[in-house]
Amino acid sequence: MAPLQGFLPPRTPEGRASIVRPPPWHYSGDIVTIEYRTDPSRVAALLPDGIDLADDDPGAVAILWADWQSCSDSFEELDDPVRAQYKECFVVVRCKWRGQHYSRCVYIWVDTDFALARGWHQGYPKKLGAIHMTRPVTVGRAGPRLEPGGRFGATLSAQGRRLAEARFTITGPSEGAGFVNALPMLHSRDWPSIEAGAPPSMKELVTMKGRDVELGPAWTGGAELNVFSSPTEELSALGPREMIAGYFRSVGVTFEGGTTLDAARGE
Amino acid sequence: MAPLQGFLPPRTPEGRASIVRPPPWHYSGDIVTIEYRTDPSRVAALLPDGIDLADDDPGAVAILWADWQSCSDSFEELDDPVRAQYKECFVVVRCKWRGQHYSRCVYIWVDTDFALARGWHQGYPKKLGAIHMTRPVTVGRAGPRLEPGGRFGATLSAQGRRLAEARFTITGPSEGAGFVNALPMLHSRDWPSIEAGAPPSMKELVTMKGRDVELGPAWTGGAELNVFSSPTEELSALGPREMIAGYFRSVGVTFEGGTTLDAARGE
Amino acid sequence: MAPLQGFLPPRTPEGRASIVRPPPWHYSGDIVTIEYRTDPSRVAALLPDGIDLADDDPGAVAILWADWQSCSDSFEELDDPVRAQYKECFVVVRCKWRGQHYSRCVYIWVDTDFALARGWHQGYPKKLGAIHMTRPVTVGRAGPRLEPGGRFGATLSAQGRRLAEARFTITGPSEGAGFVNALPMLHSRDWPSIEAGAPPSMKELVTMKGRDVELGPAWTGGAELNVFSSPTEELSALGPREMIAGYFRSVGVTFEGGTTLDAARGE
Amino acid sequence: MAPLQGFLPPRTPEGRASIVRPPPWHYSGDIVTIEYRTDPSRVAALLPDGIDLADDDPGAVAILWADWQSCSDSFEELDDPVRAQYKECFVVVRCKWRGQHYSRCVYIWVDTDFALARGWHQGYPKKLGAIHMTRPVTVGRAGPRLEPGGRFGATLSAQGRRLAEARFTITGPSEGAGFVNALPMLHSRDWPSIEAGAPPSMKELVTMKGRDVELGPAWTGGAELNVFSSPTEELSALGPREMIAGYFRSVGVTFEGGTTLDAARGE
Repeated sequence: MAPLQGFLPPRTPEGRASIVRPPPWHYSGDIVTIEYRTDPSRVAALLPDGIDLADDDPGAVAILWADWQSCSDSFEELDDPVRAQYKECFVVVRCKWRGQHYSRCVYIWVDTDFALARGWHQGYPKKLGAIHMTRPVTVGRAGPRLEPGGRFGATLSAQGRRLAEARFTITGPSEGAGFVNALPMLHSRDWPSIEAGAPPSMKELVTMKGRDVELGPAWTGGAELNVFSSPTEELSALGPREMIAGYFRSVGVTFEGGTTLDAARGE
Repeated sequence: MAPLQGFLPPRTPEGRASIVRPPPWHYSGDIVTIEYRTDPSRVAALLPDGIDLADDDPGAVAILWADWQSCSDSFEELDDPVRAQYKECFVVVRCKWRGQHYSRCVYIWVDTDFALARGWHQGYPKKLGAIHMTRPVTVGRAGPRLEPGGRFGATLSAQGRRLAEARFTITGPSEGAGFVNALPMLHSRDWPSIEAGAPPSMKELVTMKGRDVELGPAWTGGAELNVFSSPTEELSALGPREMIAGYFRSVGVTFEGGTTLDAARGE
Repeated sequence: MAPLQGFLPPRTPEGRASIVRPPPWHYSGDIVTIEYRTDPSRVAALLPDGIDLADDDPGAVAILWADWQSCSDSFEELDDPVRAQYKECFVVVRCKWRGQHYSRCVYIWVDTDFALARGWHQGYPKKLGAIHMTRPVTVGRAGPRLEPGGRFGATLSAQGRRLAEARFTITGPSEGAGFVNALPMLHSRDWPSIEAGAPPSMKELVTMKGRDVELGPAWTGGAELNVFSSPTEELSALGPREMIAGYFRSVGVTFEGGTTLDAARGE
Repeated sequence: MAPLQGFLPPRTPEGRASIVRPPPWHYSGDIVTIEYRTDPSRVAALLPDGIDLADDDPGAVAILWADWQSCSDSFEELDDPVRAQYKECFVVVRCKWRGQHYSRCVYIWVDTDFALARGWHQGYPKKLGAIHMTRPVTVGRAGPRLEPGGRFGATLSAQGRRLAEARFTITGPSEGAGFVNALPMLHSRDWPSIEAGAPPSMKELVTMKGRDVELGPAWTGGAELNVFSSPTEELSALGPREMIAGYFRSVGVTFEGGTTLDAARGE
């Protein structure tokens, strides 16, 4: 009997049914990044034991909206774009572990199952949501241009509740697109046992970063953000105390894998 | 009592609840157009009494996928993009009425209610569907460039059934983006009476075209199209006998209104 | 050439592609009705010129959640339930026209296109929404029983915003299921011209009621309702000042058609 | 700092944001079960190394459609049914491991994220899909009664492609509701390392079964099943060679946890 194929479940004779093809995964997309400061104690409250606040600007937060196409190394998903396109909204903070600074995603919502599964593999704590962000246009009146005055809206909902709304207006070009999501990621991959009360079946601290990064021109400007409460969310505890800036940039990146830093931390 | 407000239902004190704001409606979007020839009798079978096949190339059909942003004259929808963005797939033929040639939309699927309502106002026979089309990118590996070799997929589903799949690969720049959807539209706005057996409450033949058209560069290339059968669709009767070409172009346009050509045709 | 077929667009050679099959339409479903009183001026503000408040209890409002199966006279939709099932949330007031009292639907959200189209035909001002209501169960712990203590939740969202939330707990059996949605409906079927500034293409006042009504046992109890504001809704202006009661009942009904009361009212 | 809370990611100060509340999970729902025989080699091809075909009737397969409400021990989800309701379609075979016979789920699609996450915890290889099944009714004409002649349709789609369609017509009451999904489950919980080429981070064989099972009356009858091919599915390889029967039954059950049978099988 041939062994079962498939990077993730379901595992099958041909491996075609897996919820996602194996890495590398290539991404091309547009990203709106909104950076702001919250009370640092709210960031600290989201870090696991043993992971500390960043040394400088510890209350800095980035909330990002991304409109992606992604594919495996076969590129076949691009011919059937329901398999390639998704949107996501995610919240990133910085932290320190064993003397190194990292970025860490504390909340993230996506709108397809393949992106959800990929995120859980990488340690992104993904849930499903409805994500929208204004697209820049080059013709007509129904959209902003990538130039001063260009104005973007971005929204997040889950389970029929609006969770976040941002607006961003370009004032000019920018060297970069923010500093909060700029470090290697430090993510937890923790999975409980099927047995109640037993130690976790997986408890890992991993790091990862993209390769083959290709960046479009960055634009910056002023930003507003509102977050709303929900019985199934805690995002509103991480609301803005002071806005930093907004950014728009197109990004290309490939994800191949990461490094396990600690495989039984805390047990 | 102040009169009720609202371009379409529901009509309310403030007019904010209407399924769509009043025209003018501004659109900016990307369009993939696939042109082909079918058996002319299949086109004729979709034309109402009194409307004839086009004189030349009467079996020509265009199926278009469009990824739109649209808004009213307040532009407020662009700040809340769930109110602005939608995708559609539509099928256009040409026809002749009283000696004039027109384009006519015979099938169309969209993915939001405001676009559905707007279409019914204009005479587009809209239903809901799931529409996907590959987006061109400028960075990274997960998408085509707008240049020779750029390759696009486009799909349509409704009620969980795949109805159409197209592929298009750019071979070079183009003067235009096809001829089938290029004439003023000739649309029917027919609505039955609430009384069984009574004459229609509305039975109009209208024409319309956009204004303030702004066009991006056009690209052309080879195209494939497959259409599939469904118990609730007749698109498969309009399948390709011969492919003509595919096109990609960004389009900006404003729709303000049209002209009623005949308000009781056929009664 | 055979004439085009189809009760509503698109009209086609076989009539299978119409967004909905012709009436009669048969419905079987479960309905949660929440009745309350609002400021009567808020009801009056939603009535067109010439339609007056009900004589007694003019501020009474019913908001109903319904979980339907529906089909045409061929019953084929029941074999392919994506064509038969939908949920809706709607708001009904009472009014008086030419000395007769009627029920009138002022807001309604559904979750399929065929139900949207059917509603527009009948004069229901439908938009798309996300509708949920707790289902009664007969086994297990994950749902209420149809008996005293049975507790139901019902929610409405549109465009990712929560618009209404209700709770209802059964206290006992009931003779009926409310009085607000109990009269023949008085609906407007108004459609603008394609020509800006021209008189409407359709402007009708119609009445309709179901036939072959079959009712399950009714249950009543206490109810709560919260309505929320949205830039595209005015439901929050119709919030509760005083709750009346909640009801649960299964209903079967057939809709065949209605009567046009006035076909050019107001021009 | 208080430790982070949450059964599954995201882990947060309050634990409210977790994609799902901790077990026990209570379920109440209606299940349509279709049993048939396929080529036993097709079943064998879906079993991991070391797991064998069942001794008798090794080609037996059950495909089940379920319309669930579920909740945690707080029961709060039932007041906000978007958090409680979901539908699923799943395919079960039987197998033998170390002399014991088990049921095993080889494919499953659900329509919410909380059900997806819960399934991954239990070893169900869940993906998202669109699932529909006809509901029995007690009034009106738009649905079957739970009695001989009652007729049900059930469909599955994913990524806009129809994957399976079943029909089932009741001929009479039944002792049980099939034998394929009746054994304790044998599931794999395998998760790759973040490091390419490294051994899996989790590789478990687990068993589980529900407790507090409460069963409604079972109905049986004849069934048909069609499965369709898709580039991202292998269900069509498991098509029916011979139908066995269909069943309808309402089921209540509680899931608390399972037992890890083997935690490094195959490494």
